[in-house]
Amino acid sequence: MFDAKKETKKIIEFIRKYYKDNKLGGVVLGISGGKDSGVVAALFVEALGKENVLGVTLPCHSKQEDKNLAKVVSDYYGFELINLDLTKPFDAFKKEVNKLGTFTDEEVKNSDINLKPRLRMSAVYYLAALYTALKGKPYIVAGTSNKSELYVGYFTKGGDSVHDIAPIADLTVEEVIAVGEYLKVPAEVLHRPPSDGLTGLTDEDKLGVTYKEIADYMNDPESVTKKAREAIERHHRNNAHKFNIPTYRKW
Amino acid sequence: MFDAKKETKKIIEFIRKYYKDNKLGGVVLGISGGKDSGVVAALFVEALGKENVLGVTLPCHSKQEDKNLAKVVSDYYGFELINLDLTKPFDAFKKEVNKLGTFTDEEVKNSDINLKPRLRMSAVYYLAALYTALKGKPYIVAGTSNKSELYVGYFTKGGDSVHDIAPIADLTVEEVIAVGEYLKVPAEVLHRPPSDGLTGLTDEDKLGVTYKEIADYMNDPESVTKKAREAIERHHRNNAHKFNIPTYRKW
Repeated sequence: MFDAKKETKKIIEFIRKYYKDNKLGGVVLGISGGKDSGVVAALFVEALGKENVLGVTLPCHSKQEDKNLAKVVSDYYGFELINLDLTKPFDAFKKEVNKLGTFTDEEVKNSDINLKPRLRMSAVYYLAALYTALKGKPYIVAGTSNKSELYVGYFTKGGDSVHDIAPIADLTVEEVIAVGEYLKVPAEVLHRPPSDGLTGLTDEDKLGVTYKEIADYMNDPESVTKKAREAIERHHRNNAHKFNIPTYRKW
Repeated sequence: MFDAKKETKKIIEFIRKYYKDNKLGGVVLGISGGKDSGVVAALFVEALGKENVLGVTLPCHSKQEDKNLAKVVSDYYGFELINLDLTKPFDAFKKEVNKLGTFTDEEVKNSDINLKPRLRMSAVYYLAALYTALKGKPYIVAGTSNKSELYVGYFTKGGDSVHDIAPIADLTVEEVIAVGEYLKVPAEVLHRPPSDGLTGLTDEDKLGVTYKEIADYMNDPESVTKKAREAIERHHRNNAHKFNIPTYRKW
């Protein structure tokens, strides 16, 4: 049985120890307005103090709602929240692509969807290095992926998968929510249906399974329907390449 | 003793097998005008045929010379070379950063240097997904890091470290050159002093050791000077975090 209070304390200790062992100062993370980044922000505020946490909203042709919910989190925990709008860099990039030819919406669909998290990754790392210089102590980038997303490979390689510390990567969605409840993450953030903010669909629409089914499957593959099991195994298999880079070895 | 002919054949077999096993079609890689990308391009032309290789030049406030040398490689091997200029996306990004405050050149130096390889990564993945759609077969991204660079952590996390297949990651710089000589990579590319094209310095200037010393060290740590050994070990230690993301585990 998952003990939210105990695990929360252990995660905070884990963060503190890593910072102490490596003489680190602060953390930067993208705040999407969803539960994962809300919970990770709360954990870092507890571990390092709010003055060492920098939240960033990274809109890119996005809805205003995301920014409002990010502000709910930063107001509640009192950490600094800055906004770096990626809409114009994205458009400038697309303008260069359009010099290569004329492409249909369908042809650039996957490219466009995944460009956004890659620009967001570039931006949080940009700010981590900038704050390191400004504050005179190292800032690193926190990851917000949870175990359920990771299991089905639901992330962009070179995007949200790139970070320096992973506090909730071993927690299922349900466990993340339990930690969030313990840390009193505002309910409209914690219980918002997870979506990528990119396609207009929820994660569960896109995956064809619920996070509850993924957690149940990880616990016991026989406990979910055949349809759910097959979908989970297909995602897991098709995304295995995101975890291991095939590398030629001499001998 | 490194047998360039034998290893070249084995790398080509490794690439072909991975493509066959995973039903892949083509490859995208950034062509810098340096030896690593030149050798990797040559390996893929041999493995897949020139019609399945897409080279990209990704200038970003760069010298024209890089593009000219990239063309030497693509002309020699006959693969398609396209240009996607990242100068304007970079400038659009910087314009957003400047809305956050006024920063000195020194304060943004590290941020700026590492933004470029991250934008390049974003671009090669953009093109891989685009060509997958255009050609109706999967394109993946080739990495061009060699063993010597990897050992000292000389790469940008979220930049050149992100790729889908690593053909020369187990080859020292000297072994990459031997493969390049066997594959007749044009000499002005193969023997160009390695530089990142970002800082105006050569790699060896920046690292404070030569690639020869790194290869010798990996073979026998006692074979290099104390100064070189200490520099290599310092780089290796300081960059260890790029390889393993510290992750909280429940039990």
